Amino acid sequence: MLPDFRIHSPDRALEASLRRKIDQKAKPVGALGQLEALALQAGLVQQTLSPRLVAPHLLVFAADHGAARAGVSAYPQEVTWQMVENYLAGGAAINVFTRCAGLALQIVDAGVAHDFGPPSGRSGLIDAKIAPGTANFMEAPAMQRAELELALTRGAERARALAASGCNVLGFGEMGIGNTASAALLTHTLTGMPLEQCVGRGTGLDDAGLARKRALLAQAAARAGLLPGKADPFVALAEFGGFEIAMMTGAMLAGAEQGMLLLIDGFIVSAAALIACRHAPALRDYCVFGHRSAEPGHAALLEALSARPLLSLDLRLGEGTGAALAYPLLAAAVAFLNDMASFETASVSTA
Amino acid sequence: MLPDFRIHSPDRALEASLRRKIDQKAKPVGALGQLEALALQAGLVQQTLSPRLVAPHLLVFAADHGAARAGVSAYPQEVTWQMVENYLAGGAAINVFTRCAGLALQIVDAGVAHDFGPPSGRSGLIDAKIAPGTANFMEAPAMQRAELELALTRGAERARALAASGCNVLGFGEMGIGNTASAALLTHTLTGMPLEQCVGRGTGLDDAGLARKRALLAQAAARAGLLPGKADPFVALAEFGGFEIAMMTGAMLAGAEQGMLLLIDGFIVSAAALIACRHAPALRDYCVFGHRSAEPGHAALLEALSARPLLSLDLRLGEGTGAALAYPLLAAAVAFLNDMASFETASVSTA
Repeated sequence: MLPDFRIHSPDRALEASLRRKIDQKAKPVGALGQLEALALQAGLVQQTLSPRLVAPHLLVFAADHGAARAGVSAYPQEVTWQMVENYLAGGAAINVFTRCAGLALQIVDAGVAHDFGPPSGRSGLIDAKIAPGTANFMEAPAMQRAELELALTRGAERARALAASGCNVLGFGEMGIGNTASAALLTHTLTGMPLEQCVGRGTGLDDAGLARKRALLAQAAARAGLLPGKADPFVALAEFGGFEIAMMTGAMLAGAEQGMLLLIDGFIVSAAALIACRHAPALRDYCVFGHRSAEPGHAALLEALSARPLLSLDLRLGEGTGAALAYPLLAAAVAFLNDMASFETASVSTA
Repeated sequence: MLPDFRIHSPDRALEASLRRKIDQKAKPVGALGQLEALALQAGLVQQTLSPRLVAPHLLVFAADHGAARAGVSAYPQEVTWQMVENYLAGGAAINVFTRCAGLALQIVDAGVAHDFGPPSGRSGLIDAKIAPGTANFMEAPAMQRAELELALTRGAERARALAASGCNVLGFGEMGIGNTASAALLTHTLTGMPLEQCVGRGTGLDDAGLARKRALLAQAAARAGLLPGKADPFVALAEFGGFEIAMMTGAMLAGAEQGMLLLIDGFIVSAAALIACRHAPALRDYCVFGHRSAEPGHAALLEALSARPLLSLDLRLGEGTGAALAYPLLAAAVAFLNDMASFETASVSTA
């Protein structure tokens, strides 16, 4: 059964007071641009004039994709588990950037096609494996309905456990060779944007590889036969995978239910966010969009989500790197709301 | 006499090795976008494969403008010294953001029209006052040649003192009611962009105020009679001020001479950077552009400097806030270059 999520838009009764607090800071009205919108959002989500970011975490969900064997990626499938090992060893970009930003990092095995050995031996890896990779969506749905529901449930458990420990900011990242293919199919199916515009080079396909990826994904879309722009988000998710996207979706839904701020990364994570928002539109109010990816399909997702990301640095790495790099801006927004003096307290003349 | 600056472009012999180090990191080639360019720049400026950001400082230069009395700003002139007091008390946006980013903050009185009392009583204020405000550029040049040279010299002394103490990153900010008017005139004069396109609302003029500011600045430009796009940068700087812009220019020139990375803020600071680059084109290699301001003239400056800033958040506050907010991205770029594992050390398969 689908887990149940009770997600409500934050009460906007506080909005006028928050705007007044922002406007009374000793600066011209609106002069902090997007940071003012961010401060307002944090206050509304936490229902306070003095929001706090407590024990922020970034979760990287990793899983393999049956379709990776069809040749949709420049990298071999084994890179998924090798990169998980790299995360556990602390040597990846997301390790560096979460350390810089003061974010705790958790790595979740949502469905990697690899035996990492007994949990006791793997410091830091959270075993939530649904199966060793999805089925190949070229031939059949990537996952069964029961697998989808289990992935959503396990993702939700993760977010609820962190909320129970006091964390109120969840950042999202992912690893899964082939997952830009899943995200492209999800973007096409959910937004109705032509498939070709949703397919990019992923980790670095050349022109021939890109043409091949487009042709393969057109076949997969035809096989599934969902109506672009009209399909049920969970049906689309089961068709195209992957487990990491499904588990993130569950974590986002539970995170919003728990009143957490959700820090969204690039293309893959935004696909999960769109699925979550289609299921529960109020979830959008909890989302902070970290960056605009260089992957072309991301633009369609951002438009569908009415999102303007904080950063636009031509990143296309995934792992949650764009979310981690944007976190200091969220922290700065909350800090100015709490710590800046007003015109009155600073004895500064107004306009 | 004009101080002498010996500024050389960093030796590019190290570029191939730096690129190789970046490309061997366990990520697709180019996947960290603008951060890769930033890591390369930091390595070249410091002439090492392992750059370090040591004791980074943000300097806020404050000064008053004679033209403020002509009505080019939405705020009264006294706000300049009141905001300086606010910085010293720790309550302004730049205090909050430098604390968040781990930047040391110094406030420099370059020419505020206010007596701050004896230095001993003012914890933190650096007295480098040239005069209590510039002359009104509606009637005469904002400063005398000797004042310009003194401002450049005192700015240079500041940067050299910080370099001597080990600091190798200088961020720049400013405060001066009326200084978007100076920056607009400098932008017009140095780039040749039509004046109208260089003039914005500053801290928040309404439509009538903007029209008045445009008309006043057109008169000032006509009075000075410099040839747009052709004028000597220091002649233009003396004509239109202000002392904070001149002192920043001197600090940038000395900072580049000392091999420091220069973190450039928005409209006003970029005007100083363009003056510095026109005097010594190699200075451009030391500049990191923090953000794209909402003030319209900034676009012309960025184009003249071939600059693509890190952030674009509709900020229009000044104080160095855009530079401080961008600093974590520079730190992240240097951190990935130093701390990320390579494909080989992480045992990850390549494409």
